[in-house]
Amino acid sequence: MSHNSFGHLFRVTTWGESHGPAIGGVVDGCPPGLSLSEADIQPWLDRRRPGQSKFVTQRQEPDEVRILSGTFEGLTTGTPIGLMIENKDQRSRDYGEIAESFRPGHADLAYHLKYGVRDYRGGGRSSARETAMRVAAGAVARKVLGTGITIRGALVAMGGDMVDRANWDWAAVAENDFFCPDRAAAARWEEKLLALRKAGSSVGAVVEVVAEGIPPGLGAPIYGKLDAEIASAFMSINAVKGVEIGEGFAAAALTGEDNADEMRMAPDGTVQFLANHAGGILGGISTGQPVVARFAVKPTSSILVARRTVDRHGQDRDLVTKGRHDPCVGIRAVPVGEAMMACVLADALLRHRAQVPDAPVSTRLPRN
Amino acid sequence: MSHNSFGHLFRVTTWGESHGPAIGGVVDGCPPGLSLSEADIQPWLDRRRPGQSKFVTQRQEPDEVRILSGTFEGLTTGTPIGLMIENKDQRSRDYGEIAESFRPGHADLAYHLKYGVRDYRGGGRSSARETAMRVAAGAVARKVLGTGITIRGALVAMGGDMVDRANWDWAAVAENDFFCPDRAAAARWEEKLLALRKAGSSVGAVVEVVAEGIPPGLGAPIYGKLDAEIASAFMSINAVKGVEIGEGFAAAALTGEDNADEMRMAPDGTVQFLANHAGGILGGISTGQPVVARFAVKPTSSILVARRTVDRHGQDRDLVTKGRHDPCVGIRAVPVGEAMMACVLADALLRHRAQVPDAPVSTRLPRN
Amino acid sequence: MSHNSFGHLFRVTTWGESHGPAIGGVVDGCPPGLSLSEADIQPWLDRRRPGQSKFVTQRQEPDEVRILSGTFEGLTTGTPIGLMIENKDQRSRDYGEIAESFRPGHADLAYHLKYGVRDYRGGGRSSARETAMRVAAGAVARKVLGTGITIRGALVAMGGDMVDRANWDWAAVAENDFFCPDRAAAARWEEKLLALRKAGSSVGAVVEVVAEGIPPGLGAPIYGKLDAEIASAFMSINAVKGVEIGEGFAAAALTGEDNADEMRMAPDGTVQFLANHAGGILGGISTGQPVVARFAVKPTSSILVARRTVDRHGQDRDLVTKGRHDPCVGIRAVPVGEAMMACVLADALLRHRAQVPDAPVSTRLPRN
Amino acid sequence: MSHNSFGHLFRVTTWGESHGPAIGGVVDGCPPGLSLSEADIQPWLDRRRPGQSKFVTQRQEPDEVRILSGTFEGLTTGTPIGLMIENKDQRSRDYGEIAESFRPGHADLAYHLKYGVRDYRGGGRSSARETAMRVAAGAVARKVLGTGITIRGALVAMGGDMVDRANWDWAAVAENDFFCPDRAAAARWEEKLLALRKAGSSVGAVVEVVAEGIPPGLGAPIYGKLDAEIASAFMSINAVKGVEIGEGFAAAALTGEDNADEMRMAPDGTVQFLANHAGGILGGISTGQPVVARFAVKPTSSILVARRTVDRHGQDRDLVTKGRHDPCVGIRAVPVGEAMMACVLADALLRHRAQVPDAPVSTRLPRN
Repeated sequence: MSHNSFGHLFRVTTWGESHGPAIGGVVDGCPPGLSLSEADIQPWLDRRRPGQSKFVTQRQEPDEVRILSGTFEGLTTGTPIGLMIENKDQRSRDYGEIAESFRPGHADLAYHLKYGVRDYRGGGRSSARETAMRVAAGAVARKVLGTGITIRGALVAMGGDMVDRANWDWAAVAENDFFCPDRAAAARWEEKLLALRKAGSSVGAVVEVVAEGIPPGLGAPIYGKLDAEIASAFMSINAVKGVEIGEGFAAAALTGEDNADEMRMAPDGTVQFLANHAGGILGGISTGQPVVARFAVKPTSSILVARRTVDRHGQDRDLVTKGRHDPCVGIRAVPVGEAMMACVLADALLRHRAQVPDAPVSTRLPRN
Repeated sequence: MSHNSFGHLFRVTTWGESHGPAIGGVVDGCPPGLSLSEADIQPWLDRRRPGQSKFVTQRQEPDEVRILSGTFEGLTTGTPIGLMIENKDQRSRDYGEIAESFRPGHADLAYHLKYGVRDYRGGGRSSARETAMRVAAGAVARKVLGTGITIRGALVAMGGDMVDRANWDWAAVAENDFFCPDRAAAARWEEKLLALRKAGSSVGAVVEVVAEGIPPGLGAPIYGKLDAEIASAFMSINAVKGVEIGEGFAAAALTGEDNADEMRMAPDGTVQFLANHAGGILGGISTGQPVVARFAVKPTSSILVARRTVDRHGQDRDLVTKGRHDPCVGIRAVPVGEAMMACVLADALLRHRAQVPDAPVSTRLPRN
Repeated sequence: MSHNSFGHLFRVTTWGESHGPAIGGVVDGCPPGLSLSEADIQPWLDRRRPGQSKFVTQRQEPDEVRILSGTFEGLTTGTPIGLMIENKDQRSRDYGEIAESFRPGHADLAYHLKYGVRDYRGGGRSSARETAMRVAAGAVARKVLGTGITIRGALVAMGGDMVDRANWDWAAVAENDFFCPDRAAAARWEEKLLALRKAGSSVGAVVEVVAEGIPPGLGAPIYGKLDAEIASAFMSINAVKGVEIGEGFAAAALTGEDNADEMRMAPDGTVQFLANHAGGILGGISTGQPVVARFAVKPTSSILVARRTVDRHGQDRDLVTKGRHDPCVGIRAVPVGEAMMACVLADALLRHRAQVPDAPVSTRLPRN
Repeated sequence: MSHNSFGHLFRVTTWGESHGPAIGGVVDGCPPGLSLSEADIQPWLDRRRPGQSKFVTQRQEPDEVRILSGTFEGLTTGTPIGLMIENKDQRSRDYGEIAESFRPGHADLAYHLKYGVRDYRGGGRSSARETAMRVAAGAVARKVLGTGITIRGALVAMGGDMVDRANWDWAAVAENDFFCPDRAAAARWEEKLLALRKAGSSVGAVVEVVAEGIPPGLGAPIYGKLDAEIASAFMSINAVKGVEIGEGFAAAALTGEDNADEMRMAPDGTVQFLANHAGGILGGISTGQPVVARFAVKPTSSILVARRTVDRHGQDRDLVTKGRHDPCVGIRAVPVGEAMMACVLADALLRHRAQVPDAPVSTRLPRN
């Protein structure tokens, strides 16, 4: 029942504040014998790292991760993996305004009312900086899942402008600053974001994460359903306000006939689905189809446009959030969403094999 | 890490299959000294009960709940509350087809592949019958929350036809068969559902749940965020494919200025929000505003229109799901959504007061 | 974090009071495909059942267990197993004294101070009646463990009179009323208990549980150590005041040389221990040797000798606990201890195979 | 279900190996607003620190703890408290023998069989070095408990030589190298240990921990009983083989009359117990009396006397464990036991106030 832990058998605990000396995490329950070093984690962190394009916060953090425990001679040992990243860019600045006032859309007031004390520097614990540890844990989770499972994320909408799925190209994701799989959309977004940035404004986005190669059977009904775990994982990411699986909210507008994922036997004896409205999950259990999930990220709350608020002394204030500006936090949420998906799946895999060690790994029907 | 338990300090465990002798649940962690009898639970079950209108399944279940433990002389004792409902309407029928084939959109294949054995009668454990226990637990949760907190649900869209919020009247919810707060929409839906029912089809829906009177401070970042708990709770409900908080997916299309919930001091010394895009939750913590959440329910998978599928012997089949037909399972999900919200909030309340026993119960700012 | 649940992956939740309508339990996480019916559970309950000899409480309970969910056509389905036993012998009696006064050695005062309300009938939730559900769950756990693992308990001391290990014969356990493996001791105990019973007194006992056929690797350091789980399991049994593993407290008086379990290779390539001071557990992990654990049960607190106490109105009282008298509750704790050991081991087995699915099942050394 | 976490609401997770770069821990769920700095933790670590007398390991570790998160301006913020101690004395040495052979009494073989890989340097994760983090967490737990609660430990037996309780003086504990409350016993032990050390042998010990000022009501039956939590906590400490509460194993030899803790009303309206055989816990719930618990520590397994064992290649070996020698690991277990007691009580306190926020804090009877 740990507030700062996620997962059950593949269990991630994080600690650290935006402007403290370091952030860190512990991955407990990782199977032994997996090859793991910092080099396996760093590339994923680099993808999430701020300061890499003009569209994300300019905080300069090398985000160099250290593995402090849990490996020996390059292999995981089954003991907890301690991870740490030192905070470098704690630039000396005046926190007066943020210390005194509650930024609209931020956790400031909520933390103040709940805890009474609040580390206001850069948002403290509520900062998206915490997500670096999720990405690090996700890299470990990928090791658990093995190379047969692919988890990829993309930004599929920005400020209401959606990608055209006909243009979808996973290769495009690495080519632009938005993790956008549609080159045409990426071009539009670039223009749009430049304008928003100039205006000191911000915009929301939708992230899609697709996991392929997933065996059937992951997920544990009723309350450990795979989709429920994904929903919790995604909703725990900063600024996320919605989560959907497969057809998602659009399913609410469909008829039963249209939403059915019909099935046929394939020549190789496996069950083939003729559609994937379900997003790879039925009854809370993976079906062997790709797991498809999306989450909505609200627009960055820190903007250069003055907003009405109050301060801790109960005075009305008009507040402009100065400092590094990130016009679309949804962009950096892509690697975070991938990481959370990896963690959820690794956890579900361990749970599944605990209960059903000899379960089938494909949709080939067991004889009976 | 129980698969069939929900919550942490207010902890609900359910058991039972659709056509077994009974379904039941255990509510653990309930505070002592609360007045509780079957009469406190039965009305909520009656609201969810099947067979009450022509738009829901015609299964006839009195759904009479018995409290088997945890109360003494009308008061909760702090020990686990055992609840049970006997299954009455296990009508004798031929399960041949459903036993042999995997119904598209149902958990059949997933359970078959995961577990190898499957109680196919009425969907077994994956049946929505399990939600009766959620409603019973929700009734207990309401006792924990007390009378100052109101939790109400409504159907806000059916088959893509949304309510007009200008017409919203909570009183209307009890007047129609849809829990619809917009009388005009209810009239349209009635017509629409009759046609769908006649056609043997079905349709999806969106449910909104609003909790008012919530104190600030509920929710425990990072991974016990109130919205993450709600997301998990709602996504665990049968047929749910999406969850959103406050503005939800629409937030992804807004700018930071438009999405900001600005604040001003009220004359009584409390902080007042000028909008509620956040749905009452910031940084995973309740702000004192109404908590607003929605979930999307897919169309009923059991339809009278033939769909392509396979059987357990690996043969292609075309399947019509006979039996009781429920053209919009989203309707009965309304009381379930309310119950899950109640359970999440009761749990969050206990967690909050464990860590911060003297936290403020309003947005009146603490002096400091 | 459920107060009334035990275990992690093989998870048992119990509910019910001594004199309520029923007691029950839920076993969650049980693997699918195991043959299970009431006939697998009932014999273990019969062993624990009261009223079977003159040395245990004369409450007459058939203790007929019903499986209400989680099996289908004689096999476990992987869904929660709901278990229930109706309470039959809730004899009409005057609870005046026990309702008003706090029995020394019982939970009465503690429950009263903690919860404010208290089901005083027969001790309510604190009654040893709850242990029937542990025994039922233990029967399921034995199914999970399979026939290669044997778990047996025995009473090894009563009132300070210990068995002579030279006389140990497991066959003797079923021959006397004490689960005593030493026929000579059993004869002495019979005489002793008859005298104590006549005097309205009671006496404590020590129970030993031995599990054989345990694979190495069970237990998860640091805080999920197998011995820590056993300690928690045993200490949660009513009236238990001490737990020890292997040499236990006697190890505190040994030297390192004497306490070392030396090793040699056996001709079959397995590691053989030359002693078992460790009780089959090193570093919290099973070694493949028999797991040996003991627990101390205090004398029955309900005695016919007057003791000084107070009542709920703050008046001094002298109290004789009338009613059914059980001169040595330690006797009936033997099947309960076995059951808890079975539950702990089943849970550890599932945890172990989640993390290390291909771990060796004997002490044959892996090549490396 | 984290293997390396302890507690529920006051939750401690540790990581790190004996000879890795650092060891660390995370304390989650700590209430906000408590004054906390390194200076609050360091003295407790200093008490546990090796190399302080000739009777404990000569490893030289300053054990300087750093708080990396969870505090702001000297106060806890309610967010996870990250703690770290760098390992300094990882002396360069030849691990050949310990890398190849399995030391009797150590976790070597068990880890090898379970995990396949093993960090053999100094015992890796199974090293008692991990207990430094327990002591650090215990210091935080003491803050949660407040100054009204006193937790003190003492060594009450060494190698079978027990203290005389008539000589008990808490002040003596700080005066000798053994945390011994009996000056006469301390003198005898000094002589004894010098001889054992010279002989390269070792000896076991018994530690007693007493917590005073405990309010009634802590502990949550049935499976979260306070004594079950203490049993698990103590048994998880390295080398512990037995745990007992109050009278403990001695209770098994008593009659019901002798074991009863009789009660009388005190003039101030509180219930007074006339004895404390129960060790302050009845029915798993604290009674307001001092909580008294003991644990048995086996003799140090690393001794300079050759023992028979095998190596990883399946060869018989005779092994002398060279290196720093600790003739009685029980000594350093005293501060660890205190810390575990503090953690258990802090956790129980949070759980109790979550469920029963207005429970009485003394044995003064509520009016009803």
